[in-house]
Amino acid sequence: MTSIANDKRPVIVQKYGGSSVADAGMINTIARKICARSGTGVSMVVVVSAMGDSTDHLIELANAVSGDHTPEARELDTLLSTGELVTSTLMAMAISAQGHPAVSLSGQQAGIRTDTTHGSARIADIRVDRLRRELDRGRICIVAGFQGLAENEDVTTLGRGGSDTTAVALGVALEAEQVEIYTDVDGIYTTDPRLVSSARKLAEIGYDEMLEMASLGAKMNPRSIELGAVYDVPILVASTFEDVPGTLIHGGDYMMEVRRAVTGVAVDRDVAKITVRSVEDRPGIVGQIFGPLAEAGVSVDVIVQNASLEGLTDVTFTVSQGDFQRALDLTQKTCADMAREVVGNTGLAKMSIVGTGMQNGPGYAATMFDALSRSNVNIEMITTSEIRITCVIAATAIKEAANALHSAFELDATGD
Amino acid sequence: MTSIANDKRPVIVQKYGGSSVADAGMINTIARKICARSGTGVSMVVVVSAMGDSTDHLIELANAVSGDHTPEARELDTLLSTGELVTSTLMAMAISAQGHPAVSLSGQQAGIRTDTTHGSARIADIRVDRLRRELDRGRICIVAGFQGLAENEDVTTLGRGGSDTTAVALGVALEAEQVEIYTDVDGIYTTDPRLVSSARKLAEIGYDEMLEMASLGAKMNPRSIELGAVYDVPILVASTFEDVPGTLIHGGDYMMEVRRAVTGVAVDRDVAKITVRSVEDRPGIVGQIFGPLAEAGVSVDVIVQNASLEGLTDVTFTVSQGDFQRALDLTQKTCADMAREVVGNTGLAKMSIVGTGMQNGPGYAATMFDALSRSNVNIEMITTSEIRITCVIAATAIKEAANALHSAFELDATGD
Repeated sequence: MTSIANDKRPVIVQKYGGSSVADAGMINTIARKICARSGTGVSMVVVVSAMGDSTDHLIELANAVSGDHTPEARELDTLLSTGELVTSTLMAMAISAQGHPAVSLSGQQAGIRTDTTHGSARIADIRVDRLRRELDRGRICIVAGFQGLAENEDVTTLGRGGSDTTAVALGVALEAEQVEIYTDVDGIYTTDPRLVSSARKLAEIGYDEMLEMASLGAKMNPRSIELGAVYDVPILVASTFEDVPGTLIHGGDYMMEVRRAVTGVAVDRDVAKITVRSVEDRPGIVGQIFGPLAEAGVSVDVIVQNASLEGLTDVTFTVSQGDFQRALDLTQKTCADMAREVVGNTGLAKMSIVGTGMQNGPGYAATMFDALSRSNVNIEMITTSEIRITCVIAATAIKEAANALHSAFELDATGD
Repeated sequence: MTSIANDKRPVIVQKYGGSSVADAGMINTIARKICARSGTGVSMVVVVSAMGDSTDHLIELANAVSGDHTPEARELDTLLSTGELVTSTLMAMAISAQGHPAVSLSGQQAGIRTDTTHGSARIADIRVDRLRRELDRGRICIVAGFQGLAENEDVTTLGRGGSDTTAVALGVALEAEQVEIYTDVDGIYTTDPRLVSSARKLAEIGYDEMLEMASLGAKMNPRSIELGAVYDVPILVASTFEDVPGTLIHGGDYMMEVRRAVTGVAVDRDVAKITVRSVEDRPGIVGQIFGPLAEAGVSVDVIVQNASLEGLTDVTFTVSQGDFQRALDLTQKTCADMAREVVGNTGLAKMSIVGTGMQNGPGYAATMFDALSRSNVNIEMITTSEIRITCVIAATAIKEAANALHSAFELDATGD
């Protein structure tokens, strides 16, 4: 292989998640797949996550030594980054043992430079010279995902789903032909197949729609989809274990399949609701309610504020169930003197219809509310974006709701 | 704490081995010890090894993914370096949780630059600016032992006992008052206490003697002792678990205790012997025998060549028992056409008396041979250095031999 030939080979970036590399046997299986793919004339960069539940194990250790203390984010980042280093070196060894030259690269060695926000650092720059050099030498590069290096030489991590971000960012920096995310689901479905038996796998989906449907089974990191969208890098989501076509996330026209106005029905089961009743409706009040929550790191999702009645208003918002008690306590404290009461409950779900086609046509909301109503599903909150309509409903109703919406918007597989 | 005050504080470098930090509870215990020591007005740098048997676990994984292949040394180095990173971050968290500012530093962050000899890299340079900066800020620095960074940005490891080397090298670079090696033995003994009940712990020992006695229980890395000797940094070997005085290895006069000519009796149980019989006695023959062994990475210890008889000689050498079969096969192949036969056996031990006092007095060898003979211990090989006399004997005889020598040279505790 000459350097010239290598220079011309298209770059493919693959990413394998933790469940795909959970033990030595699986690492060997993936190594064989990588070697086979490499033989098709492409330069390969492979991003790997930590093995199976090794990250959980490290977090347990961190909590065990820290007692009541919260482990420092800087230390936690270096600690967690070791999980991906382990997988990357083992994968490089496995590929070498199968006769193909390979080299592992830490986030630092792969040139991934970030800001210093430990725990959820943003990539500032990727210096690809080392990667290019290794690819030119004909080596498969195995990059430890989820991690980078800040200016002060400290290790950072990119937060939840960070290895997806690593893969897409490398795809952008290396002008890859395609980024391939291999996972334990085989693509993006019109809705959760566990809820709706006629759910259909999508051959392709747009970046915007995918962003809205991010909770739809594939558990893709929204940041990585944004990044792909900005730089127009096609992202394939496919199964590690089964050799079946996945779903291609891309920005081009996709008229290959009959376009429907609604692409899918997204379901989020992890929703709790907090309502601040009869709060004074004056400027700054919302900031006073949400400021302490932001400081405490509670992520607020849907926010609805009713029209003011006699200078008083109700503000309702949702949080994840794990944050519920903390958010309720905080909000009760914040609002003790300015609202009549703060109440809340868990056991809710968000049901969303998503589709770029909705931008140009009316009536989707009406169809959605009607379908839910005919299935006796009560709507507790409504919120919309340009390409999405979301209803908060009782978690117990998600199966009826998903089926009702899936058939109301003609998403069933039989419609093909 | 002002920066000026910190600048004046003496630096103490401590090192804790894997058995001292085997789980979260032990890490918390050590963290408390470190905090207490830090309160005595010293700047502290603490070098840690990988937790318990975590290194073995990583090696198992490397072998599992590599099949018949030997894992690449470069990949193995990054893989193994994660073990020390885990301990260093956990220790920093544990110290912070106890209220003292602390920061973990990888080998790279601690400025440890090495050559590129993966698996047994030599330290080329230590850039202490970051360490100094952290110490000046009043932080306890926890350094991941055993690792460094080569010029090409690849991670290297320093080989067996590498964390000792890290600690002493940092002690040299930071002009530390003392380097303290905490381990599961409480010091250096006149001989193995399991063999000789009257074995006595030494309060102090010279670098040269310690080098010769390196196998004497404390399992200190000879390179770290050499380094201490060259730069005259005192090294304390003491128990992690018991608060009893350890042994100070240093280069000054030590007339505090009554000097004996012989400081201790060293025992090495892991000895096998190979004899090349009737090999032609001509220049270059020894190189021909040992060249292939060196290439195969077999470490040859004692070498004895008998005087030539009729142009033929016998060459005998020892290797560790683990290397025996490979060394025997190699040597039989090498000598097939130039020696009458190559034979060998395992089950041997090296028994050495060590002491700088031996340099200036005769008769030590005679006393040693006489003591062994009176205990019916047969001597198979003899080799000497300036401050050591070593006899190779049957491993079954080590208890009698150690006791005979310990009392012949008046090392018994009752002699104090």
